[in-house]
Formats: sequence, structure tokens, C-alpha cells
Amino acid sequence: MFKLALCQIKSYVDKNESMAAAERYIREAAAGGAQVVSLPEMWICPYANRYFKEYAEPADGPAVKLMAQLAKELGIYLIGGTIPEVEDGKYYNTAFCFDKNGEMIGRHRKVHLFDINVRKAISFKESDTFTAGEDLTVLDTEYGKIGVAICYDIRFPDWHMKMAKAGAKLIVLPAAFNTTTGPAHWDLTVRARAVDNQVYFAANAPARDEKGIFVAYGNSCISDPWGKFVAHADEKECILYGDIDFDHVDSIREQLPLLEHRREELYK
Amino acid sequence: MFKLALCQIKSYVDKNESMAAAERYIREAAAGGAQVVSLPEMWICPYANRYFKEYAEPADGPAVKLMAQLAKELGIYLIGGTIPEVEDGKYYNTAFCFDKNGEMIGRHRKVHLFDINVRKAISFKESDTFTAGEDLTVLDTEYGKIGVAICYDIRFPDWHMKMAKAGAKLIVLPAAFNTTTGPAHWDLTVRARAVDNQVYFAANAPARDEKGIFVAYGNSCISDPWGKFVAHADEKECILYGDIDFDHVDSIREQLPLLEHRREELYK
Repeated sequence: MFKLALCQIKSYVDKNESMAAAERYIREAAAGGAQVVSLPEMWICPYANRYFKEYAEPADGPAVKLMAQLAKELGIYLIGGTIPEVEDGKYYNTAFCFDKNGEMIGRHRKVHLFDINVRKAISFKESDTFTAGEDLTVLDTEYGKIGVAICYDIRFPDWHMKMAKAGAKLIVLPAAFNTTTGPAHWDLTVRARAVDNQVYFAANAPARDEKGIFVAYGNSCISDPWGKFVAHADEKECILYGDIDFDHVDSIREQLPLLEHRREELYK
Repeated sequence: MFKLALCQIKSYVDKNESMAAAERYIREAAAGGAQVVSLPEMWICPYANRYFKEYAEPADGPAVKLMAQLAKELGIYLIGGTIPEVEDGKYYNTAFCFDKNGEMIGRHRKVHLFDINVRKAISFKESDTFTAGEDLTVLDTEYGKIGVAICYDIRFPDWHMKMAKAGAKLIVLPAAFNTTTGPAHWDLTVRARAVDNQVYFAANAPARDEKGIFVAYGNSCISDPWGKFVAHADEKECILYGDIDFDHVDSIREQLPLLEHRREELYK
């Protein structure tokens, strides 16, 4: 059993202001007893293509260093939401993840890029800027295995089953749904991924900023493996805490053995 | 655009009574303007292992003949819920499907058998009696392609994606959830399969019979590809109608191209 905290914060146009806000929330979450803390997608940067390159940094940039230092100082696992990463001239939407010693134990680059065109509501093409990642990210922690995916990745059940098969019993998803897809699909997909894979599923959204460049849905939430919400936020800034019990995962999987009942040979 | 009707009926200990009730409902659904009609899982038989073999019939048995004859006479597609089928000494939980000429155009044998042991609530082992099917079932109709799966199959996202990839734009699922898993997961999984695969998803339950041998959850429902319920029943006997518009499926898939965005090479 451990305590997870999702920091539902907003980002600022000033990168330093975003970093100061994130630090404040991470410190508060640790003080609140969380052993695992996460941040939302693009917590350092307005969520719009024209900002991503300007705010991007390499894996030894200032935001990455800040996260590593805070994880070590506070003795927490930190799933660092996402920031734009640059490497060899390519840009990625990346979640850097750290253990209690501040060591980087995972780096998830968003695998499914969000290119959408919902008529009269929202149009956005993430692939204009970002290159898609290729790798599955499952963190090995003292509590057990934690999968990490990002936002639009949630819509691809196969990717989550792959994490469950790799041993993940909790999946943490930094994610910035918008106010069109949010009301339609946010709670639904969070609970569905939890129930299909029999994992805890935690989705960490940014807080909503009605005057912001991107208006996020908010509503960070944590579902247990039976599809019951352990905790659910509204749209405002907050820290959402949830107790995560991997014995409960084992119990659900024993009672309804979905992983065993899969017929892999027929799915090809 | 066509009209789908789900007959939410109960089964009787007397097989002839079940057949008479099914006939009555199918005739009413056709009179109500439905072009595609379906029945629930095990509409001919109490849902318990001790009955399945006694009530089973081969593919030229009386219930199959009745369904074929009604489909032809009424000029409807009929997805015949399920009945226990026997072939070469093996038993299957089978959905026989017919076109408007009464020709059998599909036979889905439940691929995932329901073996569950939820503590203090429900324990059931379908594989004590049945052999699992192996084949994907996608019906070719004048309206487009319709996938057919059965009850517990719903919990396996891969199977439904396989139907979507084979062209299904509607999936019909005869299914008898119970009153433990029903409230927990029925609406959730119906909507999730609809949204993940961008299909209409129609789940046809038996009516609840509080005094019956098996107490079904009922709540037959039809979700559109955006996860909105087109129609939703309570637990009582009824015919649930819904208009199915495959242009709406195409529109959703164009706006949010999930099938195109899949990264098949990474899912292996």
C-alpha cells in the first residue's frame, strides 16, 4: 500500500513560474505523505504547437534537473508529467521519471500523437511538432511495477495491455484532455483501461485555466481495478491523493482472471 | 440507416414456451419496423450448467429452423441470441445468424468462456460444459458489416478491434451479465467497446426474472460510436429499438482516426 498524489496544476507562459508552481505542489504532496507524485502533461509549457520547440529541453535541462533534485531531497518517486524534450534535433512529448535517489528510472515518449479534427469543436495536429516514441515504459519501484503512458495513448487498448502483461499494476497517465473530448470520454476511458487491464489507473490532468491558451478539462482521477473511483477532482488546482493497494489488484485478478483467459493465438 | 431491435426477453424451463415467446417478440419487432432483430444469450434455456446439454441442439434443430423460417417470412436479419449447440459430442454457446432469405450467414461460438469466482457474490464455470469457439464472426449484410460476439467476449478488447478491422461498424452482443458484474461493468464496457472501436455497440440482455434460476441484469442498450446511448432499457421485458447510421461511424472515424493512428508494429 502506498499513497499516490496527482498534482493538478496549470502551466504559465513564463517557464520559471511553471517550475516554481510545480516545485511548490510537489513539496506539498510529499509533505502530505505521498510516496509517488505525478504532474500533468505539458506542465511547463502552454499546450500549443507554437510553444513546444521554444520550451523544449534536453534530458539534462533545468526542469529535468529540478525534478531529479526534488525526488532525491523529498525521497519520493516522481513521474514528471510531460515536458517537450529535444534530442538530436527531434522533439518529443516526454515523461521523465525518477526514483527516491533522484535517478532517472524511466523516460516515456508519447507513442500515439494526437491529430484530431472534430468539426466545429477542436482541431489539433501534435505531429506537426513532435516525433512519436517507440518504447513501452514500466517503472520498477519498491512497491511494484508502474506503467506510464501519455494522454492520447489511453485510446489504444493494446498499449495498456502490453503494460499490464509487463507487470504494471498501476498506470499513471499525464493527460490534457480538452473540454470537448473530456466530458465525452475522460471518465469512461480511465475506468475502461482500469477494468480491462485490472490495474489502478490514474490520470493526471492540468487544472483548467479559462483564460489560458489551452483550456484543459481537468478532472484528474484514480480508478481502482474494479472501475471504482478512488478519488476524483473537479477542474480547479489541487492535489488529488489516492491509496494504491496492489493486493487488491491481485485479488481482482484471482476472482476474474482476464489475463489468463486471453486467447492470444486468436488475436493475431 | 436501419432500425435495430433488441428483444429483451426471459427464458423458460419449458423450451417450447421460450420458443413461443421469442417468436412473439421477433414478430412484434419486425412489425415495429426493425430490419435487424436480435435475441439475448441463452434465450432458450435456463442459464446454468445443468441445463445446457439437455437443451442443446444441432444446427438443424427446431430452434434454428424456427429462426431461419421467421427471418425469411418477416424479411429481417436475425441475430439469434444464443442457444446451446451440440456438434460431434461437443457443446458450444452459439449465436446463429440469418439473412432476409432465412440463409444462415454466421454462427458465432463464444470464444471466451466465463469462468469466474467473485468472493461471496458469484461463482460460475462455463467451461465445465462448453468448448470455446475459435472464429471471428462478421456478418455481411446489405447495410454493411455487423460483428457478433457473446457476453464475456466483451472483456477482451483485442477481439473487438479484430472485428472493427474486418469492417464491422456495428457489434451485436447477446449477453447475460449478472447482478454483481452488471451494475459494476455493463454500461462501462458497452460504451468503451463502442468508443475504442468507433462502432455502434448493442448489448442484448435477457429480461430479469427475480424468481428465475439465473437472475440477469437486463439493461440492454445501444451505444453510438461516440459513447452516447442511443437507447437503454431497464430490467423488464421489452423491445429496445435504435436507429443505426453507418455514415455517423464514418464521420467519427474521419474526425478522430483511431484506426489509422494504431501502431501495430509496436503492439506485438
